Amino acid sequence: MGGALDPAVATGRNLARAALADLGPGSRIVVAVSGGADSLALAAVTAFVAEREAYELSGMVVDHQLQDGSAAVAARAAEQLAGLGIPSEVVAVDVGTAGGPEASARRARYAALERTAAEAILLAHTLDDQAETVLLGLGRGSGPRSIAGMSPVDGVLRRPFLTLRRVDTERICQAYGLQWWTDPHNSDPGYRRSRLRAELMPLLEDVLGGGVAEALARTADQVRSDSLYLDDAAAAVELPLDVPTLTDLHPALRSRVLRRGALEAGADGSALTAAHLAALDRLVTDWHGQVRIELPGGIACVREGDSLSYVRTPVGG
Amino acid sequence: MGGALDPAVATGRNLARAALADLGPGSRIVVAVSGGADSLALAAVTAFVAEREAYELSGMVVDHQLQDGSAAVAARAAEQLAGLGIPSEVVAVDVGTAGGPEASARRARYAALERTAAEAILLAHTLDDQAETVLLGLGRGSGPRSIAGMSPVDGVLRRPFLTLRRVDTERICQAYGLQWWTDPHNSDPGYRRSRLRAELMPLLEDVLGGGVAEALARTADQVRSDSLYLDDAAAAVELPLDVPTLTDLHPALRSRVLRRGALEAGADGSALTAAHLAALDRLVTDWHGQVRIELPGGIACVREGDSLSYVRTPVGG
Repeated sequence: MGGALDPAVATGRNLARAALADLGPGSRIVVAVSGGADSLALAAVTAFVAEREAYELSGMVVDHQLQDGSAAVAARAAEQLAGLGIPSEVVAVDVGTAGGPEASARRARYAALERTAAEAILLAHTLDDQAETVLLGLGRGSGPRSIAGMSPVDGVLRRPFLTLRRVDTERICQAYGLQWWTDPHNSDPGYRRSRLRAELMPLLEDVLGGGVAEALARTADQVRSDSLYLDDAAAAVELPLDVPTLTDLHPALRSRVLRRGALEAGADGSALTAAHLAALDRLVTDWHGQVRIELPGGIACVREGDSLSYVRTPVGG
Repeated sequence: MGGALDPAVATGRNLARAALADLGPGSRIVVAVSGGADSLALAAVTAFVAEREAYELSGMVVDHQLQDGSAAVAARAAEQLAGLGIPSEVVAVDVGTAGGPEASARRARYAALERTAAEAILLAHTLDDQAETVLLGLGRGSGPRSIAGMSPVDGVLRRPFLTLRRVDTERICQAYGLQWWTDPHNSDPGYRRSRLRAELMPLLEDVLGGGVAEALARTADQVRSDSLYLDDAAAAVELPLDVPTLTDLHPALRSRVLRRGALEAGADGSALTAAHLAALDRLVTDWHGQVRIELPGGIACVREGDSLSYVRTPVGG
C-alpha cells in the first residue's frame, strides 16, 4: 500500500501496539468504526498490529440512523474494513433524544459496543476530541471531574489515538488509500461541538499563541491523575458523616466524601454539579441553620445537629 | 451618597467585611489602587467596613509609568481616594520588560506593595480576572498548577472580589459617584489578555451556553484546593529520590515529588513545564537508558542505576 513510510502511519501503529501490549495472541479486539477518518485510520493500523500479534480483530460499524443515507455510509465503512481484511458487522441503533443528539448517540453507541464479548474495544478519539471535551467540561464548571477528559483505558474501552492529532488520522487514511466520510454535522453550527471545532479552537490557538489542543490534553491528563488519587483517598474515609470529622477533612477530600455519600444514597452523579457540592460543603462549614440541600435524583442531604444524612425526597413532596 | 441600597454595594461590603473578619481594630490595611473601576470600588466598600471595624485603611496608587499621562491618572485616583476619606501615597515604579509588559508590571506592583508594613494588602481582582487567568493557564498547559487561578488569600495579599463580576465594580463606582479610568490597553489587541476579554470570552459564552466565567472560576477553586492537598502530601514524602520508591508512588504524588526535588536543587519553577515533568517521569517509569533531563535554571536531573539526582549544569557546558 506504499504508505508504510508515512510517519503518521508509523506513529499510529506504535500507538495501537502500545495500547494492546498486555493482550496475548488470540485476544478478541473490536474496533468501533463510524466511517470517519479517525476510526478508519485506527482500523488500518490495528489490522497491521493484529496480524503480527495474532489478535482476532473485527469491526463494529454503528449506524445511528440519524441522517438520510446513514445505512449507505455504514455499508461503505464495512467495505473499507473488508478491504483491510477486517470482518465487521453493521449495528443499527435507535438513538433516543434525552440529553441532546450528541449525548444520546454516544449512549446508543456504547450500549451496542458493550454487548460484544471482546477483550478490548478500540475507540478512535483523538487529541483534538480530548481538547474539545475539556473545553465543554470547562463550560459546565463541574470542577476537576469535568475537565479530566477521556481516559486512555476505561474498562474494556481503549483509546489508542488520544495523543494523535485528527489531521494525522487523515494522513493515515490517505496512505492506506481509504476514503473516509465527513459527517455534515461537523460543520453544522447547531451542534455545540462543531462550533467549538470550527470557531472556538482556532480563536483560542490564535489568542493564546498556539499549542492549545496539546495544552488542554496535557492538563486533562494531570487533572485526571490527581482526581483518581483523591477519589481513592476519599474512598478510604469511613462513612457515615459526622460534622466534626468532615470539618477536619481537607476540603479536597471533604467534597469527594460528600459526593460519595450522595451517590451511595442514589443521587444522580451526572447531574451533580459543583454548585451542589458547594452547598453541601456550606452545610458543614458555614451552617446558619439551613437544614436540607436538595440534590438531583430525588435525594436531599439533611443536617440535624452534628449529623448529616442523605434521605430520599418523597415523590411529589 | 445614596448608593447604599445598590445590591452591588451591599455585596461588595459583605465581601470586604468577610475578607478582613480575622483582623482586630487598629489593623493596618492597604488597598492597591490603579484608578480602574475594580480597585476604586474595592477602596469604597473597604472604607465603609474600615470605619465600622476601626481598621487603619490607606491606599497605595501604583504608577507604572508605562503610558503618557500615567502620573495624572495616578493623581486622579489619589484624589478619588481622598474623597472617600482614604489617605494614600502614589508610588512610581520602574517596570522592566522581562516576561512581557504585563508580567513585569505585575512584578513591579507586587514589589512596591510588599514594602508596606500592613496586616493585609487588598487586591481588586474580580471573577472575570480569575476566569481570564484560568484560560491563560490552559493555554500554557502546565497542568493543574496553571489553571488553579489566584487564591483569595496569598500571604499578606487578599482578594475580596474574586467572586464578584467586573460589571458590579462599575455599579459600585456609579453608586459612590466615583470616576474610574479605563486602561486603553484593555482594548489593545496587542495584549493577549485584552483579546481574551474582548474576543475569546464572548465566543466561549456563546458557544458553551453562558456562565463560562463563573464555571472557570469554580473549577479553579476546586483545582486549587486539590493541588494544595496534593502538594502537602508530596511534601511529606522524604527525599532523596530512589527509583523503586518513586515507581511505587501514585503518579499524582510522583510528579510533585519530582518537581519539589527540582525546585530544591535550584530549577526555575516558573519555567518548569508539564513537558519537563513528563520527561522526568519517564526517567523513572520508562527508562531506556536516557541519563539526564535538562531543566530551566541550569539544573539537570541525572539517573544512574536506581538513583536520581539533580545537578547544576556547568556554565557554557
